[in-house]
Amino acid sequence: MRFFSDNAAAVCPQVLDALARANHVDTAYDGDALSQSLDAAFSDVFETNVRALWLPTGTSANSLALAALCPPYGGVVCHRHAHIQVDECGAPVFYTGGATLLLGEGPGAKLTPQAIGDAVSGIRPDVHQVQPHAVSITNATEYGLAYTPAEVGAIGELCRERGWGLHMDGARFANAVAHLGASPAEVTWRAGVDALSFGFVKNGGMSAEALVFFKPELAAATLIRRKRAGLLFSKGRYLAAQLLAMLKDDLWLANARAANAGAALLARAAGDRLVFPVEANEVFLRLSAGEAASLRTLGFDFYDWGVGEARLVISWDQSEDAIRPLAEAIAAL
Amino acid sequence: MRFFSDNAAAVCPQVLDALARANHVDTAYDGDALSQSLDAAFSDVFETNVRALWLPTGTSANSLALAALCPPYGGVVCHRHAHIQVDECGAPVFYTGGATLLLGEGPGAKLTPQAIGDAVSGIRPDVHQVQPHAVSITNATEYGLAYTPAEVGAIGELCRERGWGLHMDGARFANAVAHLGASPAEVTWRAGVDALSFGFVKNGGMSAEALVFFKPELAAATLIRRKRAGLLFSKGRYLAAQLLAMLKDDLWLANARAANAGAALLARAAGDRLVFPVEANEVFLRLSAGEAASLRTLGFDFYDWGVGEARLVISWDQSEDAIRPLAEAIAAL
Amino acid sequence: MRFFSDNAAAVCPQVLDALARANHVDTAYDGDALSQSLDAAFSDVFETNVRALWLPTGTSANSLALAALCPPYGGVVCHRHAHIQVDECGAPVFYTGGATLLLGEGPGAKLTPQAIGDAVSGIRPDVHQVQPHAVSITNATEYGLAYTPAEVGAIGELCRERGWGLHMDGARFANAVAHLGASPAEVTWRAGVDALSFGFVKNGGMSAEALVFFKPELAAATLIRRKRAGLLFSKGRYLAAQLLAMLKDDLWLANARAANAGAALLARAAGDRLVFPVEANEVFLRLSAGEAASLRTLGFDFYDWGVGEARLVISWDQSEDAIRPLAEAIAAL
Amino acid sequence: MRFFSDNAAAVCPQVLDALARANHVDTAYDGDALSQSLDAAFSDVFETNVRALWLPTGTSANSLALAALCPPYGGVVCHRHAHIQVDECGAPVFYTGGATLLLGEGPGAKLTPQAIGDAVSGIRPDVHQVQPHAVSITNATEYGLAYTPAEVGAIGELCRERGWGLHMDGARFANAVAHLGASPAEVTWRAGVDALSFGFVKNGGMSAEALVFFKPELAAATLIRRKRAGLLFSKGRYLAAQLLAMLKDDLWLANARAANAGAALLARAAGDRLVFPVEANEVFLRLSAGEAASLRTLGFDFYDWGVGEARLVISWDQSEDAIRPLAEAIAAL
Repeated sequence: MRFFSDNAAAVCPQVLDALARANHVDTAYDGDALSQSLDAAFSDVFETNVRALWLPTGTSANSLALAALCPPYGGVVCHRHAHIQVDECGAPVFYTGGATLLLGEGPGAKLTPQAIGDAVSGIRPDVHQVQPHAVSITNATEYGLAYTPAEVGAIGELCRERGWGLHMDGARFANAVAHLGASPAEVTWRAGVDALSFGFVKNGGMSAEALVFFKPELAAATLIRRKRAGLLFSKGRYLAAQLLAMLKDDLWLANARAANAGAALLARAAGDRLVFPVEANEVFLRLSAGEAASLRTLGFDFYDWGVGEARLVISWDQSEDAIRPLAEAIAAL
Repeated sequence: MRFFSDNAAAVCPQVLDALARANHVDTAYDGDALSQSLDAAFSDVFETNVRALWLPTGTSANSLALAALCPPYGGVVCHRHAHIQVDECGAPVFYTGGATLLLGEGPGAKLTPQAIGDAVSGIRPDVHQVQPHAVSITNATEYGLAYTPAEVGAIGELCRERGWGLHMDGARFANAVAHLGASPAEVTWRAGVDALSFGFVKNGGMSAEALVFFKPELAAATLIRRKRAGLLFSKGRYLAAQLLAMLKDDLWLANARAANAGAALLARAAGDRLVFPVEANEVFLRLSAGEAASLRTLGFDFYDWGVGEARLVISWDQSEDAIRPLAEAIAAL
Repeated sequence: MRFFSDNAAAVCPQVLDALARANHVDTAYDGDALSQSLDAAFSDVFETNVRALWLPTGTSANSLALAALCPPYGGVVCHRHAHIQVDECGAPVFYTGGATLLLGEGPGAKLTPQAIGDAVSGIRPDVHQVQPHAVSITNATEYGLAYTPAEVGAIGELCRERGWGLHMDGARFANAVAHLGASPAEVTWRAGVDALSFGFVKNGGMSAEALVFFKPELAAATLIRRKRAGLLFSKGRYLAAQLLAMLKDDLWLANARAANAGAALLARAAGDRLVFPVEANEVFLRLSAGEAASLRTLGFDFYDWGVGEARLVISWDQSEDAIRPLAEAIAAL
Repeated sequence: MRFFSDNAAAVCPQVLDALARANHVDTAYDGDALSQSLDAAFSDVFETNVRALWLPTGTSANSLALAALCPPYGGVVCHRHAHIQVDECGAPVFYTGGATLLLGEGPGAKLTPQAIGDAVSGIRPDVHQVQPHAVSITNATEYGLAYTPAEVGAIGELCRERGWGLHMDGARFANAVAHLGASPAEVTWRAGVDALSFGFVKNGGMSAEALVFFKPELAAATLIRRKRAGLLFSKGRYLAAQLLAMLKDDLWLANARAANAGAALLARAAGDRLVFPVEANEVFLRLSAGEAASLRTLGFDFYDWGVGEARLVISWDQSEDAIRPLAEAIAAL
């Protein structure tokens, strides 16, 4: 059974159904009825007036968000292990036209105001050095930690003081919200977030993420940049349909809760082996090479993570019954 | 009835079915079985060894092709009315890192070796002026004209002599091939084309186009650029599935033939009103404002095209029966 | 004798003297006393509060001005024969991060509100097409025509209405001002110009041009872009010294008047051969190949300009006595 | 007396004289006799066939070198304290079109094969991560350490094995060569260097550095990029003249030896206070705030460098007599 990544899972049936229902002629690009309803649908979720754009990938959503928040000659503070730094092949540089990522430290890929301050403390305010213009945090982090509203708020406050933008990479935003029990608003704009990459693909979607601007005025140039990057689908309604299906009846939360529950099951089995607390759908374990091999012999696939550690990711469609054998195998190591 | 654009039409059922059949866990990105079979499938179509990448839009396919053929400081010759010049918001500049489009002239958005020569004749071979590195032609053109293998070959010969790359924007490649009765090979690599944006979305697809390299060595850097642009879908198999469904049993040709037949029906009705010969699925008509209004009163929707002209585009799913009322209305004007 | 170009002429002695006078240790970059005095010196010339930056070339000054006025996804209207379009190897694209030049028409490389309107009239206000954000005019134009304050003002008014920036490429600004008898203010900011590339190198300087912002708020980001482009000289005082030497006692005007006078001498000799009125230091003549050859046999060097035409450029240091033999030779053809 | 930086020093008289001697009309840009003689002059210095381009700043030379060695989607390994990382405001990103600097560690800003290997050891060879294409080292380093031919050669060997390019930032190349007593060839191309930014401005020049390609085929595209960046001076002969004056009779070495001798004088006085061995013209000292203040009271100006340290830089024109008072003051602390 596969525990490699939630981004390889199947698409949930409600999303497939929505594609079928959208299958009739409509206005091209984002002029169709579904695309036109996104702002309202996401404004409902966030309890404020937002602009929401469909995009096909998290990388494109993150990059366009950063391009909206940072000039080509500026810098964006992120964690050294942030996806935008480690796994996007320089996309943020490409989209911003040259911005630099300024790397912060902290356990579990989590930034704090202190860590952000340290990351920029050596920067002289002159034209020789790249100046910070924004911060990007990932919630849940790349190591499955959730920022609480208070933690986001502390960073948001720092950004306000310095005049910086604040982006949240929410590839697993649903998992974070499900874990926190907070409202989407509390963990984003009420805490100072300007733009959110709201992920759906890892959570049961097929090919649609949402870029949500809590400062609606950031959307206008982004609509142009989206086209200029070849990301304006001519049949955009099939992306909008996916997002709307995920929002309907809080399917996004239900899927995330299911994945989180599976991860919690593994966490309980893992006990002291846990590298980080499990606050989303990712489990990082200490596993010797022999232990990893023995789990694989039992048919469980996952990634090694550095030396002596492993990463297990639970998908929306992996039931507790399906995961239990792995939990038992871990407990029995 | 809508004759605005083929890119607003529904998706054909075989494509939707393919999405459902692909709906199980598989390796992420392009490591899945379907994505891995694209090279072979397109190599069959083109009777030579090609590299084929899925991409979500024609703009992204065109732009990555140009980035593979032209350095940031170079130029690409295209027609003044080419889609890459007129309707892609500068995407070729963005993806190439700064290349310049050098504009050629010719009726029906069609280039010739003469027109290309004229476009570059004033360029001194020095560092002060942008030097041409590639040519991009659209087949069928933006005005629905098909380049024959001989016409492409003449341009291909010019490119070989000058050491330039040759790109074909095939947003309506299927329609051109269906019209010409030529093999896909004849109108592309045998005529000197290096890279083809092979369009499927206007022809019944949902969100997948193919970028086909006839020089396989061009693919490696493009795979990187695709990721860097945020275009590497994590669930890439849903794009591959669309392409494979379109290739199966030559569905792409059947769909294009259907659309072309509808356009031919209108062309016969239009007679002297035709601005260009109808060689694909687009019909450009001379229509006074009054005539256009009267057609719209009858329920036919289409774009005005400049003053006194109109564009009608037929989609893969518009049957001759459905189009006949429009044909009769045009004939009766 | 050479009439190829004013940019190959010697440097005037006051500039060389200024270099020698600046030859002592001072603060690096633009922190030295000379660099720090540029704002005041140029504010005097323009009778308003300006920001003035030294730059080594006209191309860099033009490109930085455009980067200040146009976003990466925008367009800049210029004449089809503008230096930024024809002779800067794509530098404006490089510096703006991808902006597109939108080409206007008009005799003598001169734009009018009508020509600008025509250049953008076909642009739909949607995200598929590059939208204009600025206009760039050259004064004196590439064909030696001077825009009057009224002519600039009409374009400035258009820009104000549309919310566009207005840049003036003043590679031969001195020649234009000398011809017009207008004040520098009248032909720039009072007529709506936001940024001026004020040329000195063609007019007796060595390696320093000025980029003058009439909207001082445009300077801050440009100072960063200047560094980021490798244009922030560590010994910047040697550029500032050149500019200050040229401004002192209106040397820039004296030099320009001298060159203009030489051109006027040739213009009178040329009579009906003139392709354009001579309003600066460039003379465009109708010359058959035989006539051109005979002038060259007499020792006069110049560029052919297309077929049957020639360009003669007078430098600041070519006295009327030195030019008279050429004038007589032309008259005698 | 100023010990801030060698880049604020005066220009040496031979360079000023050369400017005066070059002051006559000649072909523009780099078509003049002086510019055309650079390849030969630098080929003599390096005992092999090189291409040498004048450039106004070290940042522009470095950035163009990197653009020649690394694609927009690639990475360049450099030291965390390298000038290209710390003090060029993102210029390498701008010129390469988006390349990423991959940071290595090591005392005194000096890289080793081991440090380079560590910097890239975590990079998976897939499209999600930026792949290294080149290494850039600074000789002498930003902390005044000289790489020996053997040290450069070890890095050169690593680059050859991996297929990477090797750039040397030689802002203080003269000081390193003077210290090493090696030939320029030994410490560059014979050790595997592909491109050298050969600095002259810190060493008595005014506004001219040389970019030297040991792989001559790298020059062609760089000539285009130089123009596209607005760095092709119309009166290029005044840059070439500076370089030729510095090469004549090994003035560059004489100036560097003078500066190094001054630094050595301070080093001897500093004894245990030295943070790094003094192998060029920079001296890093441990100094308490009180000690620093007392030196400043005596009229010596310099930069603090972090907490409890100071940087003193000796210029080509600071004689040992002039420096001796400072040496004595340090010894007396």
